[in-house]
Amino acid sequence: MELSNAVKASVLVNALPYIRAYQGKIVVIKYGGAAMIDETLKQAVMDDLILLSLIGVRVALVHGGGPEITSTLNKMGVASKFINGLRQTSAEAMEVVQMVLAGKTNKDLVTLICGRSGKAIGLCGLDGNMIKCEKLKLEDGEDLGFVGNITSIDASLILNQLDNGYIPVIASVGRDDNGNVYNINADTAAARIASELRAETLILMTDTRGLLSDKDDDSTLITNVNISDVPLLIRQGIISGGMIPKIDSCVETVRRGVKRAFILDGRIPHAILIEMLTNEGIGTLFSVNA
Amino acid sequence: MELSNAVKASVLVNALPYIRAYQGKIVVIKYGGAAMIDETLKQAVMDDLILLSLIGVRVALVHGGGPEITSTLNKMGVASKFINGLRQTSAEAMEVVQMVLAGKTNKDLVTLICGRSGKAIGLCGLDGNMIKCEKLKLEDGEDLGFVGNITSIDASLILNQLDNGYIPVIASVGRDDNGNVYNINADTAAARIASELRAETLILMTDTRGLLSDKDDDSTLITNVNISDVPLLIRQGIISGGMIPKIDSCVETVRRGVKRAFILDGRIPHAILIEMLTNEGIGTLFSVNA
Amino acid sequence: MELSNAVKASVLVNALPYIRAYQGKIVVIKYGGAAMIDETLKQAVMDDLILLSLIGVRVALVHGGGPEITSTLNKMGVASKFINGLRQTSAEAMEVVQMVLAGKTNKDLVTLICGRSGKAIGLCGLDGNMIKCEKLKLEDGEDLGFVGNITSIDASLILNQLDNGYIPVIASVGRDDNGNVYNINADTAAARIASELRAETLILMTDTRGLLSDKDDDSTLITNVNISDVPLLIRQGIISGGMIPKIDSCVETVRRGVKRAFILDGRIPHAILIEMLTNEGIGTLFSVNA
Amino acid sequence: MELSNAVKASVLVNALPYIRAYQGKIVVIKYGGAAMIDETLKQAVMDDLILLSLIGVRVALVHGGGPEITSTLNKMGVASKFINGLRQTSAEAMEVVQMVLAGKTNKDLVTLICGRSGKAIGLCGLDGNMIKCEKLKLEDGEDLGFVGNITSIDASLILNQLDNGYIPVIASVGRDDNGNVYNINADTAAARIASELRAETLILMTDTRGLLSDKDDDSTLITNVNISDVPLLIRQGIISGGMIPKIDSCVETVRRGVKRAFILDGRIPHAILIEMLTNEGIGTLFSVNA
Amino acid sequence: MELSNAVKASVLVNALPYIRAYQGKIVVIKYGGAAMIDETLKQAVMDDLILLSLIGVRVALVHGGGPEITSTLNKMGVASKFINGLRQTSAEAMEVVQMVLAGKTNKDLVTLICGRSGKAIGLCGLDGNMIKCEKLKLEDGEDLGFVGNITSIDASLILNQLDNGYIPVIASVGRDDNGNVYNINADTAAARIASELRAETLILMTDTRGLLSDKDDDSTLITNVNISDVPLLIRQGIISGGMIPKIDSCVETVRRGVKRAFILDGRIPHAILIEMLTNEGIGTLFSVNA
Amino acid sequence: MELSNAVKASVLVNALPYIRAYQGKIVVIKYGGAAMIDETLKQAVMDDLILLSLIGVRVALVHGGGPEITSTLNKMGVASKFINGLRQTSAEAMEVVQMVLAGKTNKDLVTLICGRSGKAIGLCGLDGNMIKCEKLKLEDGEDLGFVGNITSIDASLILNQLDNGYIPVIASVGRDDNGNVYNINADTAAARIASELRAETLILMTDTRGLLSDKDDDSTLITNVNISDVPLLIRQGIISGGMIPKIDSCVETVRRGVKRAFILDGRIPHAILIEMLTNEGIGTLFSVNA
Repeated sequence: MELSNAVKASVLVNALPYIRAYQGKIVVIKYGGAAMIDETLKQAVMDDLILLSLIGVRVALVHGGGPEITSTLNKMGVASKFINGLRQTSAEAMEVVQMVLAGKTNKDLVTLICGRSGKAIGLCGLDGNMIKCEKLKLEDGEDLGFVGNITSIDASLILNQLDNGYIPVIASVGRDDNGNVYNINADTAAARIASELRAETLILMTDTRGLLSDKDDDSTLITNVNISDVPLLIRQGIISGGMIPKIDSCVETVRRGVKRAFILDGRIPHAILIEMLTNEGIGTLFSVNA
Repeated sequence: MELSNAVKASVLVNALPYIRAYQGKIVVIKYGGAAMIDETLKQAVMDDLILLSLIGVRVALVHGGGPEITSTLNKMGVASKFINGLRQTSAEAMEVVQMVLAGKTNKDLVTLICGRSGKAIGLCGLDGNMIKCEKLKLEDGEDLGFVGNITSIDASLILNQLDNGYIPVIASVGRDDNGNVYNINADTAAARIASELRAETLILMTDTRGLLSDKDDDSTLITNVNISDVPLLIRQGIISGGMIPKIDSCVETVRRGVKRAFILDGRIPHAILIEMLTNEGIGTLFSVNA
Repeated sequence: MELSNAVKASVLVNALPYIRAYQGKIVVIKYGGAAMIDETLKQAVMDDLILLSLIGVRVALVHGGGPEITSTLNKMGVASKFINGLRQTSAEAMEVVQMVLAGKTNKDLVTLICGRSGKAIGLCGLDGNMIKCEKLKLEDGEDLGFVGNITSIDASLILNQLDNGYIPVIASVGRDDNGNVYNINADTAAARIASELRAETLILMTDTRGLLSDKDDDSTLITNVNISDVPLLIRQGIISGGMIPKIDSCVETVRRGVKRAFILDGRIPHAILIEMLTNEGIGTLFSVNA
Repeated sequence: MELSNAVKASVLVNALPYIRAYQGKIVVIKYGGAAMIDETLKQAVMDDLILLSLIGVRVALVHGGGPEITSTLNKMGVASKFINGLRQTSAEAMEVVQMVLAGKTNKDLVTLICGRSGKAIGLCGLDGNMIKCEKLKLEDGEDLGFVGNITSIDASLILNQLDNGYIPVIASVGRDDNGNVYNINADTAAARIASELRAETLILMTDTRGLLSDKDDDSTLITNVNISDVPLLIRQGIISGGMIPKIDSCVETVRRGVKRAFILDGRIPHAILIEMLTNEGIGTLFSVNA
Repeated sequence: MELSNAVKASVLVNALPYIRAYQGKIVVIKYGGAAMIDETLKQAVMDDLILLSLIGVRVALVHGGGPEITSTLNKMGVASKFINGLRQTSAEAMEVVQMVLAGKTNKDLVTLICGRSGKAIGLCGLDGNMIKCEKLKLEDGEDLGFVGNITSIDASLILNQLDNGYIPVIASVGRDDNGNVYNINADTAAARIASELRAETLILMTDTRGLLSDKDDDSTLITNVNISDVPLLIRQGIISGGMIPKIDSCVETVRRGVKRAFILDGRIPHAILIEMLTNEGIGTLFSVNA
Repeated sequence: MELSNAVKASVLVNALPYIRAYQGKIVVIKYGGAAMIDETLKQAVMDDLILLSLIGVRVALVHGGGPEITSTLNKMGVASKFINGLRQTSAEAMEVVQMVLAGKTNKDLVTLICGRSGKAIGLCGLDGNMIKCEKLKLEDGEDLGFVGNITSIDASLILNQLDNGYIPVIASVGRDDNGNVYNINADTAAARIASELRAETLILMTDTRGLLSDKDDDSTLITNVNISDVPLLIRQGIISGGMIPKIDSCVETVRRGVKRAFILDGRIPHAILIEMLTNEGIGTLFSVNA
């Protein structure tokens, strides 16, 4: 469909109040899932980031790994075992995880953004002692190896980059006081970084439509959740399974002062722009006022 | 027509290279004609300014008066006489011109922008000694009264406002060394201010489609003119009549270092946004490279 | 009388402690009355402002209109009616009031200051949303039309100009949330602006000697009033009539943190300099310590 | 040997003129070879960097890979072939090279510095479009694959980090305009970065004593070379083999304005501190005044 | 004579153009002679400095010693011998000179200014390596001892104090590269400091009326001298004796870019204010345009 | 003993944690006693100051006079009388004290530092009204003359110099509100200045080993004292005689927020560096945590 110029202009003008609302604010985006695999989606996300950055939103991107970790481990003959959906990470595997996350996934994203005339810099939790963690202990005593639990975040290095006009792209690894490096859940890392940055908004990109009343029916999207209602939603079984830790991250970051936390469907092209710069909420928003 | 969100997002994303190109640059817009009279067009122009300002373009608006001057003169019983299209301005009329331009037209525009959540400040050429002029002398010896010819511009006051994030709205009156106030052609004032501000772009809004090869056929719009071709176009009669002084202003401002000068049709809603943030040029561009 | 140079030098040296006391401080002056009409007095006031500004006092001037409003209304055939000394302002009259205040009186003052090598900029309450107001409601139910009651002041635009070394000259009109413009009492506007700017001093220029014990005897000037004594002075009838709103403005601004509020006789040439830079108080000072 | 405090104090005091000479200056260090493999040497280098950084020298570290690339390629079953000492790098190998350099070697160094209370940030030539390159073409037509030849350096991102008090640690990969990533010789990258940063000093760490008159006799170290003498030294065979490109980098960077370029023996613990903060030159200095 | 307030105000207003002309400019004053001995004159000079400083002139004071040096030398039994009007200064005498100039005269002036609510700081040419000099060699071979000839001035320390709002008071001693301290002619030091500071004005206070056509007749004051006319005036004998070095200092400083150099009669109370802030020139001005 | 470069490097590296701890912090040093008389010790102290300053410690030096005062008084035939170890200071003697302290001792130290490429500026308590005092009254009614008791410190002038990278060298004289100048105990002045500057550390240099359990046995040095234990130590007689006022100064400054106060043996070359940059404490530290 070819749009007339008048239509194009009106789309831009209609974005005006949203631009005003977000300008100068910090938005932390956890990037993952389908949007990280499909090339078209990936480019759409990067364009969204660049546009937001250009119009004055201060964007930070946090990412985990994905299929690349498993494929590299496979190529190197390192076996992968999962416990409760978490990768059991041996010292040998951790070296690969760090290498892929911080050297491959991270720098590929930076290259993509810079290639589209954006300004990005690739960091990980090791840079400037950004993410300090300790070994994550499971309640059932299972040993996950080098999977970390964040103990503190020093976001000053991220702020420096934002102040200089760069989009920081952050791989979620961290280290403990002994210099051991750990794999860290990217949702959690994004939420904690958002808190430390006193961000306006946290966006967790997923491969689901958002929180659904009936998880098998996309038309039952819940667009607004007051975080005080989350316990009830869990008891009702509406929040369940893999959604629980994601939503916990949202709740926790809102408690620490972030105004809005979204769960957003990464399979929709330009989901971020649509959510942020149009009048339609396409994901689920967690806030204290929802 | 209701647009899908995906379409909206793609309009925004397509504006990206244009935003990048104009960001931080100064654009001076001469506002007048139909766009100043029709309420819908007027609001569209103000929204364009606010959007440009929000995405980091540094916009200054220069305006003359319009029907309001004549109507106020009429109400006050001061006769208006025109010589070669220029208002012969007696001392008594000049008081009214200043009052209407700087007190009515100017502040009404400011109120309109501020009421739409923009940040504007109303100035005139008297503020901070911005526009100094002398009496304009016509070659045929006719006395136009208090019509001024700009002798110097001090744009520092405008820059202060831009630096503080305001859109300066400027009424085109000035004064001479004896404190006499003069009415000044707004096209000329805008062009000179653009030069002094080392603006990237000058836009003169008019009530014509732009420069036409055949002035009776809108489809013959000339979209690009190299300023070195202007003398030929005048000899050929393509540039003629009231277009000559407008285009002279464009040529002069480009010669003084402004990269681009547009003549733009103010009757098209959002003409400014369309020209600046889409891939379609709808006016006539004067530059050294055109 | 020709003064010797030694005498001139000693006058300058004697001003030293006063200069020190006011330097870097903000002084808001409400300008009106005789000092606004008589050309010699007017120039003396402007010179006072320029001198204060040059020696480092940060001066803002607030003015209402005067005879020019009435004469313009008359020329345009708009009738003026006064209720309790307040002009009943129809929509039509309000257009004229705005035009005269912001376009004539204001810019003429700016031209006068700039012509004497000062640096001034003319603003009104519409610029940058500076003065927000609502319709003033009289207790007796009379409808004054577009006469406004200030609801909020955003003084950031004034501060910007002071920071850049300009004397802001401010016409006292404002607007409500619907974009209706109102005429505002200049004493009140000056007092509220002084509070918002955390000014050191407010000066209200009037056509009386100050507060007099015996209103018919200029030699009974009261030079200092502790604002806590004002209610008593009203009960005693010493403060009465048109003095009441003026002194209310003084009391209110002192309560909000302005250190000193003066009522000063604008008929005395250089009254401002004399009050501020010599050892003689020629007006009435309202403060908490008086 | 236990040193007395007086002796310690005198060592510190004797460093004084050297500290003064380097303070606030930029020093770019190419790190590689033995100093990158031996744990004790590695820690000594990191302590040298931290000390220099603390006393006000602005240090940037550039590194290539080393045995880790080969070992990872081996583990992943990607064959390595060398042509004239340069690794022929297939697309598949390049992915591994990027991953190891930017994700493993780089971040391990950062972790080491941060673990010793230094402040480091890990970057590569892809961040902020820092290193742009094209495919390196060999004269004999052999195809080295993704080995790059630097076309431009944008050092602003490095300067940002230095301004914020961080030691930038930079992996020498870059990209072309099509987004292809290339392996880049770290000596060359360090030399070009030093030029762009207008560094005071370039240090290339190697596994030799420096430039020797008799390459088999360490006692024949040449401590100072005027870059104009390099062609003669090449003709005489004193500069030969692998030394030629290294010394070419030194000559080129000095020509572009870097004051001093050193070839320094990385096998000597604290070689950097000894060269920079004591009276003994232990490497070979290339300069225009040598 | 008691002045009316109106007269006081007009004196202040008349100073306005002079204040504007000097504001933000640097004025270096050589203080000496009668104005340094008579208590009333001394206080008048200090008040002049404080007033100038308050109204935004950036004032630096340079002084030599005076009777205090001789009296202290006498008390300590150190003999004084003069050659061509210059004190022959032994090492022992130099210690006393430094002590008196930098410890007594200098700090007494500072105390006087601070006691009158000014802000002063006492420096000498030894602070921050401000004045470097060498032994002054007389043409006739006579040895003056520790009398210095300025080789370089580093005025950055003075500028720091001016930037912080202090009046630097500077004793004219300096040192050579071996740490020997020298007595330096204060006229010369003031002139050189004025040049280095790119001052607007140099004022040398003396005990004469200025340059006189007839040295015995004060009414023959020459108020303006173009420095190109100085050689002629010397040949004519109008400039002679002790005036020659003073006027040489004026000529030299004007050649180096200082706009105006005055010789001013320190015996007239407030001579500085009168010269700078009134319409009467009471000294002799040396300039290129005079 | 000739140290190997490796040893030198390790000394430097071992200073690293101490440099980090003191960097950017303010250290006030009271300089006196043997370290002020012996030329070698004096130069060692100056080198310590310059090194500390270079590596980012912000050092201020406070000094009293010493033998120079007595010798100058003797030369000038002014008798010296001591009461309880304090010099009874007549008006005549005070002039000499000021002159020697501020003009001789102070400027000689500045010359020494500047001659060794440091950046120093000599101040006294009179500059910028830094030290205000009143006449010290002894309990036994004895009149000490112009010996002062500090009433207030304005350290802004010192901070200005530190901010500009200079070492302020401060002579301990001050003045009262009447302009009378007083001699002030340098230990007390240093302690009060340290408090006002919110210094990290105060160092009082003395001619004893520190606080000794047995004052006749240097091996009984007490290295750490919690200030709450001082009253007990006085009752036990361990703190006695001339140590009491020194330690009172330490206690008082720690109470006012200075973290550490040292009494340090000025007879040990480089005592300051050894105490601050090595692992051995050679003096007595007073703190709240000791």
